[in-house]
Amino acid sequence: MADKPFPSQAEDFNEWYNQLVLKAELADYGPTRGSMVVRPYGWTLWENCQAALDKRFKATGHVNAGFPMFIPASFLQKESEHVQGFAPELAVVTQAGGEELTEPMVVRPTSETIIGHMYAKWIQSYQDLPVLINLWNSVVRWEKRTKLFIRGTEFYWQEGHTAHATEQEAQEETLRMLGVYTDFARTEAAIPVIPGLKSQQEKFAGAENSYTIEGMMGDGRALQSATSHYFGQRFAKAFDIQYVDRDNTLQYAWTTSWGLSTRMIGGIIMVHGDDQGLVLPPRLAPYQVVIVPIWRSDEERDLVFEEVTKLQAELSDYRVRIDRREGHSPGFKFNDWEMRGVPLRIELGPRDIANNEIVLARRDIPGREGKQSAPRSAAAGIVGELLDTIQQHLYDRALAKREERTATPTNYSDLKDAIEQGFARVWWCEQADCEDAIKADTGASSRCIPTEQEPGNATCIRDGRPATRMAIFARAY
Amino acid sequence: MADKPFPSQAEDFNEWYNQLVLKAELADYGPTRGSMVVRPYGWTLWENCQAALDKRFKATGHVNAGFPMFIPASFLQKESEHVQGFAPELAVVTQAGGEELTEPMVVRPTSETIIGHMYAKWIQSYQDLPVLINLWNSVVRWEKRTKLFIRGTEFYWQEGHTAHATEQEAQEETLRMLGVYTDFARTEAAIPVIPGLKSQQEKFAGAENSYTIEGMMGDGRALQSATSHYFGQRFAKAFDIQYVDRDNTLQYAWTTSWGLSTRMIGGIIMVHGDDQGLVLPPRLAPYQVVIVPIWRSDEERDLVFEEVTKLQAELSDYRVRIDRREGHSPGFKFNDWEMRGVPLRIELGPRDIANNEIVLARRDIPGREGKQSAPRSAAAGIVGELLDTIQQHLYDRALAKREERTATPTNYSDLKDAIEQGFARVWWCEQADCEDAIKADTGASSRCIPTEQEPGNATCIRDGRPATRMAIFARAY
Repeated sequence: MADKPFPSQAEDFNEWYNQLVLKAELADYGPTRGSMVVRPYGWTLWENCQAALDKRFKATGHVNAGFPMFIPASFLQKESEHVQGFAPELAVVTQAGGEELTEPMVVRPTSETIIGHMYAKWIQSYQDLPVLINLWNSVVRWEKRTKLFIRGTEFYWQEGHTAHATEQEAQEETLRMLGVYTDFARTEAAIPVIPGLKSQQEKFAGAENSYTIEGMMGDGRALQSATSHYFGQRFAKAFDIQYVDRDNTLQYAWTTSWGLSTRMIGGIIMVHGDDQGLVLPPRLAPYQVVIVPIWRSDEERDLVFEEVTKLQAELSDYRVRIDRREGHSPGFKFNDWEMRGVPLRIELGPRDIANNEIVLARRDIPGREGKQSAPRSAAAGIVGELLDTIQQHLYDRALAKREERTATPTNYSDLKDAIEQGFARVWWCEQADCEDAIKADTGASSRCIPTEQEPGNATCIRDGRPATRMAIFARAY
Repeated sequence: MADKPFPSQAEDFNEWYNQLVLKAELADYGPTRGSMVVRPYGWTLWENCQAALDKRFKATGHVNAGFPMFIPASFLQKESEHVQGFAPELAVVTQAGGEELTEPMVVRPTSETIIGHMYAKWIQSYQDLPVLINLWNSVVRWEKRTKLFIRGTEFYWQEGHTAHATEQEAQEETLRMLGVYTDFARTEAAIPVIPGLKSQQEKFAGAENSYTIEGMMGDGRALQSATSHYFGQRFAKAFDIQYVDRDNTLQYAWTTSWGLSTRMIGGIIMVHGDDQGLVLPPRLAPYQVVIVPIWRSDEERDLVFEEVTKLQAELSDYRVRIDRREGHSPGFKFNDWEMRGVPLRIELGPRDIANNEIVLARRDIPGREGKQSAPRSAAAGIVGELLDTIQQHLYDRALAKREERTATPTNYSDLKDAIEQGFARVWWCEQADCEDAIKADTGASSRCIPTEQEPGNATCIRDGRPATRMAIFARAY
């Protein structure tokens, strides 16, 4: 319902987001601290993300499986960096079936350890490799600061876990999945993410290298939107994943993992949304088109309802919702579906029927400018074209905004200003002490060292140490 | 791999099952007690079940959502029968984020309580009803006796939860979903289940009435394969789910829930499997067709590989796997895919190519009888027909077996014999003390009071009390 107002983005971006998520019925707060209920509208958005990703995973040779949520607490200890990273956030089951457990179980914060345990059992020979498994599930991390979709005590995601016979194959897999995420974010979510390498400080606990896609939100801050990790032989050694190679020699496998979560939904909201509410990319929107029938008398209603039913049937290639609610004005419904971000609205009343016309209104261009009428007979074709146009427009607009808010400062005081605005792209020494110093000075962390680099040989923006690559610094969610 | 033998069904049905599940790589034991890893082959079977069910849920107006796995322990106390039923099996999180929790959280054994909590918040008016939500997730029940897919400490399922304005609507919903399950089991899983009402003793903890679909396994025992529960206003009163009706009066809602789990996979294995291994129904099988190329020389291999690739492209309407493995004989591959239950095998060698033929072998009819050759050009048509034929044959065969092993005894000593064989269909008084006595005497419980009844007025098979309906008794998994 579009009855209570919410703050504008300029007034309070944070509260704009929090209230919009509730109001659009994407999600609600659950009864335990930091938990989230994803409501049907939000879940359908997630299902559409899942379908688009799952297709890409299967096209690259992966298969899905189901792994237990409980992991023996001792498993976490086996990889030293991994346990340091996750121990503070674990939820622990100490009782089950009315008895105290002899060994507590943790609820998975991520599944590398239990995957390692099972892969060690399944992998014997080079013929068993590669293993390319993905899991769709939820994981638990007891975070202090929570925010719907962005950071919660439980969140939904997929986690891919692969094992390979060679270092090269594992590295290729890590980058292949980074590419899959980049393509998904750009093509489906219309978010111009920047793929790149995480700094050693920002990488996943237990990884040799972590890659990320970073998006810029409407307030200029960064959102780490998916990650892909190269483990080398660390987990293989911790869990004894060994195979006999073609020369009959025992070798450790090389492993990777990669994940994308419901956090992506937060990204979609914060990249495309405006003061009227959500703006959903057509390829992922639960409803791509809402038809609002307009009538005054019962007679008109019958006429119009019949016509919108026919129209919906003609639009069967698209996800179409008809708003037949009584007791709400067309204006109320326009606002309501605008708030919910439906990409395209079709208005249809008796006059339109008489004229053999429909009226189409684009969500991405509010007001008269985004409105057009079209011949009734051309509806399906025009809807298809407009949805493509909107999808592309959202991407282009987000890219233009990102470029506008990305600076390439060349001295340290300009870096601080750049970060106030958005992303700063700078030559950087990649040293941990330098990252700490920049964070203390600006509140920004290194988001990534973009995959696309122009070769260069420069000095670090802060300390003048040698720098061979540029990094993106920004404040982050 | 088809290298280690497993017992025949006659030798040891239980071990036949346990070893086959592992050998066919459907699932494996996880590291914590009673836990299960569903491997890709088993998970794909589950995904196919999910797709077939989800389509039916959406066609009947339901939407999916995501609810937290953690429930405040106090929620379970609110419905007295519910807590009695589930308290002994709960897994409890007592620590999180390094601290002892002030209120422990249980890992959901089922979600009625947290659903009740949220529905109370979301439902205000009759206009908010019905709420028709389904969840795909996993739940935890700390069972003592576990068996892969059949009973575990964690299992995958869907749980539908609906709220309605009237008693009648809620009752209709309960039976509608029983109908959906019956159709799914018969049409997709080829299992001739019997839908019916659970006795008051066997019903879900907290339900007014529970309905079930019961299948007969290959050893004559029953498997409760899905359930649909009518709650009346019990959960609405426990969680305060109230709405203002059209007359502006505050009313409690009427609720239902219904679920089907990975247990169905156990049913598919035990209904259709034979001494060679799995026999999967074509509509759910991960691979509907396996193509085994046959070659001797490298030259032949190149020729045959080219041809099977073309054949796979022609069969793009089906889920087809080509077994290109080197170093295994065709005979080994035939056995291997038979063990894994692929409905249809196509053999293709140089001679077949020369003759413009393919050889097809049906999994449901082993040996020469199930083998036929067909013109190469007719492959797609014949595959489609054969898959339909196999699907129907599996159903018919399971139905014939069930009927053969179902008796209608008229005196109590015959009841005991009937139960040794399989199902007993008897006039029954429906009293708890009588159910206890029958269980003590025969090991059988009432499986259901079938929905389809011929009207009658008789006396209970055990105690001569009045009986108006017949019930199915059987030993059960």
